[in-house]
Amino acid sequence: MNQNEKYAAIHYHSYLGLDKVLDAQHPRSGQYGKEAHDETLFIIIHQVYELWFKQIIHELESLVGLFEADAVDEKNIGIAVSRIERINEIFKLLIHQIDVLETMTPLDFLEFRNFLFPASGFQSAQFRKTEVMLGLKMAQRFSYQEKPYYNQLSAEQQEEIKDLESRRSLFELIEDWLERTPFIKCEGFSFIDEYKVAIAKMIERERQAIETNEYLSPEERTARLTMLGANGEFFQQVLDPAIHAQKIADGHVRISYDAMIAAVMIHVYRDQPILQLPYRLLDAITTMDELMTSWRYRHAQMVMRMLGKKSGTGGSAGFDYLMETVKKHQIFKDFHHISTLLIPRGDVPQLPDSLKRDLSFYYSTK
Amino acid sequence: MNQNEKYAAIHYHSYLGLDKVLDAQHPRSGQYGKEAHDETLFIIIHQVYELWFKQIIHELESLVGLFEADAVDEKNIGIAVSRIERINEIFKLLIHQIDVLETMTPLDFLEFRNFLFPASGFQSAQFRKTEVMLGLKMAQRFSYQEKPYYNQLSAEQQEEIKDLESRRSLFELIEDWLERTPFIKCEGFSFIDEYKVAIAKMIERERQAIETNEYLSPEERTARLTMLGANGEFFQQVLDPAIHAQKIADGHVRISYDAMIAAVMIHVYRDQPILQLPYRLLDAITTMDELMTSWRYRHAQMVMRMLGKKSGTGGSAGFDYLMETVKKHQIFKDFHHISTLLIPRGDVPQLPDSLKRDLSFYYSTK
Amino acid sequence: MNQNEKYAAIHYHSYLGLDKVLDAQHPRSGQYGKEAHDETLFIIIHQVYELWFKQIIHELESLVGLFEADAVDEKNIGIAVSRIERINEIFKLLIHQIDVLETMTPLDFLEFRNFLFPASGFQSAQFRKTEVMLGLKMAQRFSYQEKPYYNQLSAEQQEEIKDLESRRSLFELIEDWLERTPFIKCEGFSFIDEYKVAIAKMIERERQAIETNEYLSPEERTARLTMLGANGEFFQQVLDPAIHAQKIADGHVRISYDAMIAAVMIHVYRDQPILQLPYRLLDAITTMDELMTSWRYRHAQMVMRMLGKKSGTGGSAGFDYLMETVKKHQIFKDFHHISTLLIPRGDVPQLPDSLKRDLSFYYSTK
Amino acid sequence: MNQNEKYAAIHYHSYLGLDKVLDAQHPRSGQYGKEAHDETLFIIIHQVYELWFKQIIHELESLVGLFEADAVDEKNIGIAVSRIERINEIFKLLIHQIDVLETMTPLDFLEFRNFLFPASGFQSAQFRKTEVMLGLKMAQRFSYQEKPYYNQLSAEQQEEIKDLESRRSLFELIEDWLERTPFIKCEGFSFIDEYKVAIAKMIERERQAIETNEYLSPEERTARLTMLGANGEFFQQVLDPAIHAQKIADGHVRISYDAMIAAVMIHVYRDQPILQLPYRLLDAITTMDELMTSWRYRHAQMVMRMLGKKSGTGGSAGFDYLMETVKKHQIFKDFHHISTLLIPRGDVPQLPDSLKRDLSFYYSTK
Repeated sequence: MNQNEKYAAIHYHSYLGLDKVLDAQHPRSGQYGKEAHDETLFIIIHQVYELWFKQIIHELESLVGLFEADAVDEKNIGIAVSRIERINEIFKLLIHQIDVLETMTPLDFLEFRNFLFPASGFQSAQFRKTEVMLGLKMAQRFSYQEKPYYNQLSAEQQEEIKDLESRRSLFELIEDWLERTPFIKCEGFSFIDEYKVAIAKMIERERQAIETNEYLSPEERTARLTMLGANGEFFQQVLDPAIHAQKIADGHVRISYDAMIAAVMIHVYRDQPILQLPYRLLDAITTMDELMTSWRYRHAQMVMRMLGKKSGTGGSAGFDYLMETVKKHQIFKDFHHISTLLIPRGDVPQLPDSLKRDLSFYYSTK
Repeated sequence: MNQNEKYAAIHYHSYLGLDKVLDAQHPRSGQYGKEAHDETLFIIIHQVYELWFKQIIHELESLVGLFEADAVDEKNIGIAVSRIERINEIFKLLIHQIDVLETMTPLDFLEFRNFLFPASGFQSAQFRKTEVMLGLKMAQRFSYQEKPYYNQLSAEQQEEIKDLESRRSLFELIEDWLERTPFIKCEGFSFIDEYKVAIAKMIERERQAIETNEYLSPEERTARLTMLGANGEFFQQVLDPAIHAQKIADGHVRISYDAMIAAVMIHVYRDQPILQLPYRLLDAITTMDELMTSWRYRHAQMVMRMLGKKSGTGGSAGFDYLMETVKKHQIFKDFHHISTLLIPRGDVPQLPDSLKRDLSFYYSTK
Repeated sequence: MNQNEKYAAIHYHSYLGLDKVLDAQHPRSGQYGKEAHDETLFIIIHQVYELWFKQIIHELESLVGLFEADAVDEKNIGIAVSRIERINEIFKLLIHQIDVLETMTPLDFLEFRNFLFPASGFQSAQFRKTEVMLGLKMAQRFSYQEKPYYNQLSAEQQEEIKDLESRRSLFELIEDWLERTPFIKCEGFSFIDEYKVAIAKMIERERQAIETNEYLSPEERTARLTMLGANGEFFQQVLDPAIHAQKIADGHVRISYDAMIAAVMIHVYRDQPILQLPYRLLDAITTMDELMTSWRYRHAQMVMRMLGKKSGTGGSAGFDYLMETVKKHQIFKDFHHISTLLIPRGDVPQLPDSLKRDLSFYYSTK
Repeated sequence: MNQNEKYAAIHYHSYLGLDKVLDAQHPRSGQYGKEAHDETLFIIIHQVYELWFKQIIHELESLVGLFEADAVDEKNIGIAVSRIERINEIFKLLIHQIDVLETMTPLDFLEFRNFLFPASGFQSAQFRKTEVMLGLKMAQRFSYQEKPYYNQLSAEQQEEIKDLESRRSLFELIEDWLERTPFIKCEGFSFIDEYKVAIAKMIERERQAIETNEYLSPEERTARLTMLGANGEFFQQVLDPAIHAQKIADGHVRISYDAMIAAVMIHVYRDQPILQLPYRLLDAITTMDELMTSWRYRHAQMVMRMLGKKSGTGGSAGFDYLMETVKKHQIFKDFHHISTLLIPRGDVPQLPDSLKRDLSFYYSTK
């Protein structure tokens, strides 16, 4: 049936289910005593957070769907970028929203805080789902009071989370997709080999430039050579598959070696028509991770201001716990480190003509 | 009973009524055909708007309560300022939120737009309430299709709105409060008389300065004198109670003469301890009006981008109607014009010592 | 010479020319009397605006360069999108910046306003350049006091502006690029013809759906059919080249018919790999135009608050003039109207397989 | 002389010193090779940062001036609040500005990064001044490479900084002002004694409420009693002057005991007319500190994204160093902890009538 056919008229109010949505604010202070004016804000802002989490989960589900296919349709990369960009706009809003919550002062919060026990943002099932869908693993979680984080959720919610944990997360699906990048190795061109040669050349050339630079004082020269040496060594280590494997084993790195190399390749050849959107995808994911971390940080700051050194409602962890999650619960950390592996465009290895053609659009080669 | 006594434990999920709030998203496209991915965003963002409107109404109700008293307790001015500042933070968020809606492209909107007929933001009862509580009058409304705006609301909602229209709005209550400002006329000091003298002196002094300023070319001198003359005439007109009354009769001005003069006085003596918070109140209201108008403007822009020259869902008015409301539905317009009446601090009449003492705090005069 | 060779060490302070930049704040109030505290803010915020305008011009120059080539290298579309997105981030900042200026109250401004005569933002050569480079034409400008806007600029600045006006602007270059879009007409496929057929089919199907929809009351049915009729007529008019030509002649539309059709095609087939970045380009330009217009609007609002109904420094035009420019100086207005021409994805004509292949990447067809 | 007299006409361009400001962008890449497109952005954004730092310093100088007086004129509290609020708006802009810098990708940065050696943001004299004026002490600074931070500054800049370090900072001046708060001890009312009694009563009442609350399970009861006990102990420790002195000695706390108690008093009685602006002052300072810390955090995030694990230009410290400063260079940390000391309004000790009158305005007692 076509979308336009035979459906009843609808009113704004019922379309949006406002009977439900606007009847879900019941301040506890009013139930047990004099209503605290600011409790309404506290309830509404958290409901708004939950609505946005629902939207983020909706986008993540579609993203997971797009990348679960063995061969991601090229058409879908553009869609994936747009959906991550939408999540990013939502995260910006969530960060901004803290400004509204901060119009409630600590003294105003105290008027109803006691009534909330033991409710706590810690119990948000949707936030946990978001983390798991993005790729946060149980083992990576900063453990709080040595209990699994989901024991505060309902049985049904726990089932859902556990099920999600057993599926591939966005992190893993993107990793898979990177590993499948064509062109990394093709006839007559091994990107990683060429890239290592390019780095060596670049370092050697810089070394000579520093040594013959008459503008530098001896101290400056030494300082620069030391930096350069450290830089060269760094590249060697990072590009060594064995060291990379060790870092994964030690928990310092998560992304696979092949996925990392593919990401570097996409970065350095990102102006090739075919790589423009993959590049935008990586960039949007890195921004998403940055925004989520910023949100955690601002949230911790706000808790500190509201509660000082006291613990949260429900005895939940306060500032210190939250600050630990800022660091430890960052999921796409490795994507931020790609920049460490880049070299200036002028030093990047030239692509063979045949490959360049493959990276362009068909019609332009006619 | 004390607030801390004898209440049951509560969980985040039930405290926030999430069973209701998160079960109120039912895309029409899914009901009648293939679900359009972006309809969820469309529903959720409008629900979030309605939640914030509920919060704004909650603040406005408390503000109306604070100012309905015949003598506003001085303690409450600080509270009033904080609550308007909160509304302002919320309006900033509502403006920001349009960025999220704009991640939905016109083509995506078309996927489900037909299902929404005749629902329209025009039918938001809470937004109407907000306008009425702030002070928008029926007569001031830009008439759309010559029907009263509330015929799209339910009978119950219409009752509520009509009842609100019969009560004093925030605009009127602030006007009353301004008219009650003490000190405007007190023994040995009539602010308005002194202010007129000060303006005349200022204009005469500037005239002499321009005439004897050897830096000016004849053209520049003439230009400046013309400007000065226009300026002087402007002050005379604006401060003339008869002309003011005429402007009110013609619908160009709404605020009463006395309230306007009180607002000027609060502005020019705002550093006096007792006037610091009244000044902040006027400033916060002006900002609120500016933000609400900005929101209308951004909303109109977004509708233009989404729909172009077509009419809105439900055949509701599109861009042109919305742009008319940007201008005509601005409620505190007169507050923006106070600046027209100000003169530099150095020209402001000196307060008599006795009055100065009254405007200070008690303990500082001991 | 390679970039890394033989250059002297540099200090942050001299690299940024801080001797100059931080020595360019000379409050006039201090020169002629007691320094007004807020004049420093007034100077600095305008200097910051000018620095950002310089950056915007730098980006526009590169964009003009990229599109001046007869055949725009496909590689450059991604770069163009990134640069427009940067301009957009800058415009967001410029809008935000008004919040900082509004911390200066009208009374504070009066402390030094008289000293500024006849300086005015009207005299910003860089802002004029920006407008001209984007595509604002002399004839389109809202005329102020019937003098050409640039008579307030220095002879050299006037030369530069006139020279820019004689060159192709970004608007025209984008129009050219759109007109060159391949695929609009190719063997066995005329997009515009197919699109018209698709629209007719869609309208007819909707008509039948409305007529047989038992949920609708007779009034609703009539209302919907009227809307549908208006909609159908609208499409016919907009897609008629003769009517389009007349609208251009009358000054209601600026973009050429062919460019408009190409833009519609890019929108409706935007998920095709080869059209993803062109789509993003159009979208980024529309956002840029929206942001620039928002900036004009916020600027007008701020002037209203600061000056009320008085004229600006230098007798320059105040709020009313600025509000006229919000509407009349909008450059890419036609791009916002593309949405008017779109139809739901399900109704969009199918591409022939051969064309679909051309719109994909080469390697994926092997 | 009056401000309006005898001064020459001025043009926007010369008023703003644009000859200097717009002639201070000299990309090093262009000097030594092919100009990197993005270096202009890099230069301009840093110049804008420096202009805003100049404005912040301008505001801080005036704030220090207002508070250096032995008895701060009550009139000036309102002015102080406005100026801190302006600084806060500027900090919000500085945070937002990072979004613009992030439109430059790591690869683009590499095009000119080598030319910048050893310039670094570390060398910004104005940022150091800002820190010192706010109250950052040498001893508190996270030491980098065991050299004093200012050895990278010019001799003149070092002199200026050392001079500033020898003067009272805003932190210390606010502390002094708090210590001078009247009313803390006055005839028949010792705030601290009454407050301790109020806390004890509150804890005892809560204990009884928990013990007799039939809604609680035994585990919940135990959990709540444990929390309550910890809470009570916490209050005792924090309000004990000897323990406070020890914490200062150990470097855990900076603010004096008396200033802290005064801040608590201002918080809990903030609705008293006379305390409304002092409360706003404390609140604005806390926000300023939060924003400055947020800026440090976003800056660190951006450096991480741009450079990964490499060190900054000039070998300056990268992400890890910056993250250390986020924590260690926070100046008004103690102000965030005031919330720890607050109790609900209903539990706050009643003020004696005579004191209440003193905290009101004179005229309202007539």
